[in-house]
Amino acid sequence: MTEAELAAALDAIRRDRARGASELARAALAILAESAERLPARDGPALEAALRRHAAALAAARPSMTAPAVLIRRWLDALGDAADPEAMRRRAADEARRLIALSESAVQRAADNAAALVPAGATIATLSLSATVTALFSRLAGSGASAIVAESRPLGEGVVLAERLSGLGMPALLVTDAALGHALGEADVAVVGADTILPDGGVINKAGTYLLALAARDRGIPFLVVTESFKRRPTDLGPVALEEMDPAELGVPPLPGIVVRNVYFDVTPARLVDRVVTEED
Amino acid sequence: MTEAELAAALDAIRRDRARGASELARAALAILAESAERLPARDGPALEAALRRHAAALAAARPSMTAPAVLIRRWLDALGDAADPEAMRRRAADEARRLIALSESAVQRAADNAAALVPAGATIATLSLSATVTALFSRLAGSGASAIVAESRPLGEGVVLAERLSGLGMPALLVTDAALGHALGEADVAVVGADTILPDGGVINKAGTYLLALAARDRGIPFLVVTESFKRRPTDLGPVALEEMDPAELGVPPLPGIVVRNVYFDVTPARLVDRVVTEED
Repeated sequence: MTEAELAAALDAIRRDRARGASELARAALAILAESAERLPARDGPALEAALRRHAAALAAARPSMTAPAVLIRRWLDALGDAADPEAMRRRAADEARRLIALSESAVQRAADNAAALVPAGATIATLSLSATVTALFSRLAGSGASAIVAESRPLGEGVVLAERLSGLGMPALLVTDAALGHALGEADVAVVGADTILPDGGVINKAGTYLLALAARDRGIPFLVVTESFKRRPTDLGPVALEEMDPAELGVPPLPGIVVRNVYFDVTPARLVDRVVTEED
Repeated sequence: MTEAELAAALDAIRRDRARGASELARAALAILAESAERLPARDGPALEAALRRHAAALAAARPSMTAPAVLIRRWLDALGDAADPEAMRRRAADEARRLIALSESAVQRAADNAAALVPAGATIATLSLSATVTALFSRLAGSGASAIVAESRPLGEGVVLAERLSGLGMPALLVTDAALGHALGEADVAVVGADTILPDGGVINKAGTYLLALAARDRGIPFLVVTESFKRRPTDLGPVALEEMDPAELGVPPLPGIVVRNVYFDVTPARLVDRVVTEED
């Protein structure tokens, strides 16, 4: 991947709201595989420097998401010796594809583990659009389970999830984010994905997750987070930022003295999380 | 007001989302004043029966709102003897206008009482569009206070409040309903209006209020309800229903197996309410 192609790919990743942290981590690895195979470089050290630059840019593209940084760090560990640039290209591309497969498999196993925890016929409340939660729903479709989904403003990722549930044949109730607290009276369990699991056990996920966790606790139903383990943030990666998107997405006209903010994620404290379910358990 | 005019007025009240419970109660009383003055009736008992029928229809038009029923019940108490229909018309019209003035004054005094409770320079979080909360903000404009407002889907009453705050010169931050939990980290107090104060102290208000109250409790800031006392529900009025509006307001295309619901109100349990501020205290 050339520098111009990388800049375009980074921009697309920064603006992407259709894919969650897990899918974007794999997209970043796919870009690195392509960079490894196609980046022009006069020698091994120049190739390594260019790949490390691409990797750093991709790892930092979505500051609320930890999986890209964790998987890319693993990928960097496998780059090895730069004496033979062609061998480095092969190792780097192979390792990127191995890590993509590992992440895909982790998502599926996390969904398996979560499916084993959800009671038969349960009504499951969620929000936004998580690949892992969608994988869980695909396992439960036709089992008597049903969903309650919040629309997830401003862009309505919850509506996209409802479309997928419709395709899966999973009955669902769709409500506004504001109405989720009331709707939760009909739910047996709340399940969300994650963008980051913080070192203290807190969870960064789509805005609204904190309110859902509060309502689940208040109503006495479990609050589960289902995620591949690569979203656990190592302490040495440093603090995580809550990404803020374009306020224009709210569709509000400019008003003197009124500031519109579109903070896209929130932090759910560990004390509200009943269980983090990964591929490991 | 004729029967056809009443039917149109009832329909407008049922669909009204720009005016809160307090304003709609006064609108109902204004309709009754007009009915008292203009309804054709062959004699006193016929007039009384027609007025009682109008009153019952108006009191029941918005089942989540208690002020119309309470104020209309007071109005019925003043109808008096039907022997002289012209005297009854005058009494009924005068009493309707007296109760409108009483309600307006109660809203202003409740806002005065709330303003005295809010610390100087406070950041006040709210949602939806309450006449009483707007009256509170008009008292605090220019004092160094500021607001955090949730947009209040599906129809965006919070955006209308932000427009009014802009007009008042009160600085405000506008966020999605989902992002209110995170934004509350910057707030000193949460303040909402009410559609009904239940006999057990619970509060019926716009959907999202329950989540705001949970977040206020979790963040350790006070959750205040500011309202005229006419929204306190007498036990003999019977249970209150949560109104459900047209699901099409969410703007979601039809999806097989997916039910869209637009429950417009929710119930905040008394244990989450730090104080109900009325004109009486």
